[in-house]
Amino acid sequence: MDQESIRVAVSTVIFALRTEGTEGKELPSLWTPFVPRLHEPHLNQWALPGGWLPGEEQLEEAAARTLGETTGLHPSYLEQLYTFGRVDRSPTGRVISVVYWALVRGDEVAEAAPGENVRWFPADELPELAFDHNEIVRYALQRLRTKVEYAHIAHSFLGETFTLAQLRSVHEAVLGQKLDAANFRRSMATSTEIVETGEVLAGTPHRPPKLYRYRQSNPLPDHS
Amino acid sequence: MDQESIRVAVSTVIFALRTEGTEGKELPSLWTPFVPRLHEPHLNQWALPGGWLPGEEQLEEAAARTLGETTGLHPSYLEQLYTFGRVDRSPTGRVISVVYWALVRGDEVAEAAPGENVRWFPADELPELAFDHNEIVRYALQRLRTKVEYAHIAHSFLGETFTLAQLRSVHEAVLGQKLDAANFRRSMATSTEIVETGEVLAGTPHRPPKLYRYRQSNPLPDHS
Repeated sequence: MDQESIRVAVSTVIFALRTEGTEGKELPSLWTPFVPRLHEPHLNQWALPGGWLPGEEQLEEAAARTLGETTGLHPSYLEQLYTFGRVDRSPTGRVISVVYWALVRGDEVAEAAPGENVRWFPADELPELAFDHNEIVRYALQRLRTKVEYAHIAHSFLGETFTLAQLRSVHEAVLGQKLDAANFRRSMATSTEIVETGEVLAGTPHRPPKLYRYRQSNPLPDHS
Repeated sequence: MDQESIRVAVSTVIFALRTEGTEGKELPSLWTPFVPRLHEPHLNQWALPGGWLPGEEQLEEAAARTLGETTGLHPSYLEQLYTFGRVDRSPTGRVISVVYWALVRGDEVAEAAPGENVRWFPADELPELAFDHNEIVRYALQRLRTKVEYAHIAHSFLGETFTLAQLRSVHEAVLGQKLDAANFRRSMATSTEIVETGEVLAGTPHRPPKLYRYRQSNPLPDHS
C-alpha cells in the first residue's frame, strides 16, 4: 500500500453534562452523542459524528459541519484532540482520523435540532463502537480528567458564572466520583483560579449561594 | 480537488537546551534542528525533519525514522504535538502534517551521529522555513511555555536529578527570560512537585548544591 492510498477523516467527541435519565442518581454525568454507521464497514454500529475530509475544506470546518449535520450541535469552539492513525484501525485501508472535541452546556444540547439518528450515551457506559472509537472516547475522557485539575472546565459546561455546588458537580461528573463538599469548598477558597462575582444565584431567596467566575476566561488553555 | 488527493506527512520538532555558541550570554537557550529541502517546493529552504507517511508505517514510527535519518537523534519518546492541515499550506496540493515533538538532553544531542545537512538554530531566531514550519515551531514553543508551569520539563532536558540552579536555567530558557534566583528558590521550596534526593552534586567540594527530583516521573503528563 503506498502513500497515495491513505485517506483522511475527521471525527468529533462531544461531552455534555446531564442529570436527566440517570433515575435517582444524584451525580450529574458526562454524555456523548453517537450516530449509526450508514455504510460498511461496521454498518449500523454506533460511531462518532464525522466524515471524510473534503480536499478544499479546513479540518475544523469539516469537523464542525459533520457534527452539525448529524447531531444539530454547533459548539462555539472545537479543539483538536488528537490524530488517530494506527495502520489497522480500519478494515478497508489506511485512514487517518483527525479528532476534535468540545464540551457543551446543557442549554446548547437542548437548543440543538438533532438529526433523526443521533443517540446520547453515558460516556463511561458505551456500546461497542465502530473502528477504534471506544479507544478515542477513552482517550478523550482521560484528557478531560487530567484537565479538570488545572483547566477551566466548568466554564464550558456551566457558562460564565457558577456556584461552588455547580462547580463541584462538574468536577464530580468528570472524575466520576463524589467529592467531599467541605473539602471542595476549602480547596476552592484557597484557589487563585476562581473569584467571587459579588452576585448570588437568582431565584433563591433564602441564603442564596454566591456566584463565582474564573479569573481568566480560558476554557481550554493549552490546546491539549 | 477530491478527498483522494490529500496526502499525509509527518514532521518532528526537537527542542534541546544549549549554552555553547551563545558567546558570553549566560542564559542557556532552546535550539531546534532543521534540514534543507532537497526537492521542490521550497528547494534548499530549511524545514523540520520529516517526510511522507508510508501506508504501512505507524505515525510515530514514521516520525522517529525520518528524524533519525536526518538528525541522528533517537529520543526515547515522541509525543504527538498537533496536526496541521490548512488547505493552502503546501503549493503542490493538500497535505496534512501530523507533527510530533520531543525535548532532548544535551548528551542525547552529543551522542547523535547527525546527517550531513542538519543544522541547529535558536528556537526564537529562526530563518524563514519551508511551508508553515515557522508557525509550527511557534506553536510548539507556546505549548512548551504553557507546560513549564505545571509539567516536568526539566526532567526531559536534565535527566532524573538536578540542582535548583539547573532547574531555573531550564525555566529561563523555555520562558526566554531571566528569573530572580531567590524568588525561584522560594517558589520551589513550597512546591509539592519536587523533592530533595538527599544527595548533592558530585565534584563540587565547597558547599555542593543539593540534588532534587520530581515527585513523580512524568515528563509530559497530558499528551498535549
